[in-house]
Amino acid sequence: MSKGPVHKFSVSKISDQQLETAEDLLVTEEPLEIRLNHGSGELRRQDRIAVTMRTPGHDFELATGFLFTEGIVAHSYQILSVRYCLEIKDDAEEDNIVIVDLDPVVEVDLQKLERNFYISSSCGVCGKSSIESIQNRGCQSLPDGNLRMSFNLITWLPQLANENQTVFKHTGGLHAAVLFDADGNPVLTREDVGRHNAVDKIVGALLAESKIPGSEHILFLSGRAGFELVQKCVIAGIPVIAAVGAPSSLAVEMAKDFNLTLIGFLRGNRFNVYSGGQRIPHPRPSPTSGDLERDS
Amino acid sequence: MSKGPVHKFSVSKISDQQLETAEDLLVTEEPLEIRLNHGSGELRRQDRIAVTMRTPGHDFELATGFLFTEGIVAHSYQILSVRYCLEIKDDAEEDNIVIVDLDPVVEVDLQKLERNFYISSSCGVCGKSSIESIQNRGCQSLPDGNLRMSFNLITWLPQLANENQTVFKHTGGLHAAVLFDADGNPVLTREDVGRHNAVDKIVGALLAESKIPGSEHILFLSGRAGFELVQKCVIAGIPVIAAVGAPSSLAVEMAKDFNLTLIGFLRGNRFNVYSGGQRIPHPRPSPTSGDLERDS
Repeated sequence: MSKGPVHKFSVSKISDQQLETAEDLLVTEEPLEIRLNHGSGELRRQDRIAVTMRTPGHDFELATGFLFTEGIVAHSYQILSVRYCLEIKDDAEEDNIVIVDLDPVVEVDLQKLERNFYISSSCGVCGKSSIESIQNRGCQSLPDGNLRMSFNLITWLPQLANENQTVFKHTGGLHAAVLFDADGNPVLTREDVGRHNAVDKIVGALLAESKIPGSEHILFLSGRAGFELVQKCVIAGIPVIAAVGAPSSLAVEMAKDFNLTLIGFLRGNRFNVYSGGQRIPHPRPSPTSGDLERDS
Repeated sequence: MSKGPVHKFSVSKISDQQLETAEDLLVTEEPLEIRLNHGSGELRRQDRIAVTMRTPGHDFELATGFLFTEGIVAHSYQILSVRYCLEIKDDAEEDNIVIVDLDPVVEVDLQKLERNFYISSSCGVCGKSSIESIQNRGCQSLPDGNLRMSFNLITWLPQLANENQTVFKHTGGLHAAVLFDADGNPVLTREDVGRHNAVDKIVGALLAESKIPGSEHILFLSGRAGFELVQKCVIAGIPVIAAVGAPSSLAVEMAKDFNLTLIGFLRGNRFNVYSGGQRIPHPRPSPTSGDLERDS
């Protein structure tokens, strides 16, 4: 029995002191366990590497996107297969365990995962060291590239994204990540109770199509832009984040360090640009144009 | 140098195609490392048990609340001291490492932490097993108790909470958890970029004041009510969650299993009750009063 992204519940709805009983659709939240088959010959083994609370759907992309953004795999050709675990004892667990088979030649450093959770004492515990740990993984500053966005294109993104969100419309209960191309066409929409999962699902889809780095893409986020979401975009080479919510201090610092364009508070015809303004050419000269470039 | 909850950044603000440069306050996001001194005699040792991205402030409550909700400590008297690590090499790390000294008689099972991340195969990977793992920690169904709320009291919570949120007003970038007493008086307000951290800070404060179980309290959440937030309330004995956002399927299932009153979509004069309606007596008889009890 495949679990859907929504569940039906009976609910008491109170409005203006009046009560009625109704049925309500809620977003499904279930654990997903990711297992990794790795090593070669007699040393081949299976490790359980993570359990994440997620909304079912695009589970394989979530698993591979997670492995990529955590630095366990670097290319899609390192992944031989992705499948659900069939040796399960319980219907309720069905579709909640994904096994990723790695090419035996891939060397896996599971301590990398631990390092991401437990920042090593050698690099210290501060915002700067959090950013440096990404640099140490070989991530470079994102090139300026060819992607340029007009003010108009940016202000249209929320409406275009909204048209692609199916589960949110029914439940109001999850985060959306929508990948746009440089012309503002929505390419991928992923929704999840976990904002990190929604982005990992996008990255997993890009990985499967060998479209990393995603240098011609814009990532729209329905919520806030925290440090870890900026980190995932830097690793996947996506040069622009446009978020409806606020960024955090460390998100802005990382965006600046890696030349990522970070847009926040994108609502109606307003938005803020926190870094990477050169990708948003300003159409008219302005005495206060700040760090946005003028193309005229 | 103590880090504040907000940082000032220069930002390009675009509104109706016009650009201006301004200064903007963003919520601070910095890692916090929690270390535990435990064991007795020669076996006494220090373990680094977690790093969480958090907004500085109430760090000791965050550390102790985390230890409590993760099942590492059960009573405040087990904690001898909580302090910042002073043996640091870098200003940027200052205030980012908290050391909790446990009474040597406390036996620590660090595998508990791991079990919370990596659900053991013996209990399966499904929503049901996630709930059972809390039952296995000895958590009981919450008693009905004396706490009763009127429709009016509930609809006032967001406004009362809003008056107590100081950082959000300036940054729009974080989650608030506000603890109310049974009469609707705000008792504690904690804000953080991480919604789990905001709740752990509340729980840590209750623990320090020996006010667990928090059976006479209502927890207001500015965002959504996911499974892990319901779990923290069950563990701390707080019988009511009132959230502005949507609950997830598993949050509702857990709330029902543990007799927690779960209110969602609390906006204006409207809200939904997903479980535990007996704590919200209905003032007038209604032909469709569902599982809400009538007090007349």
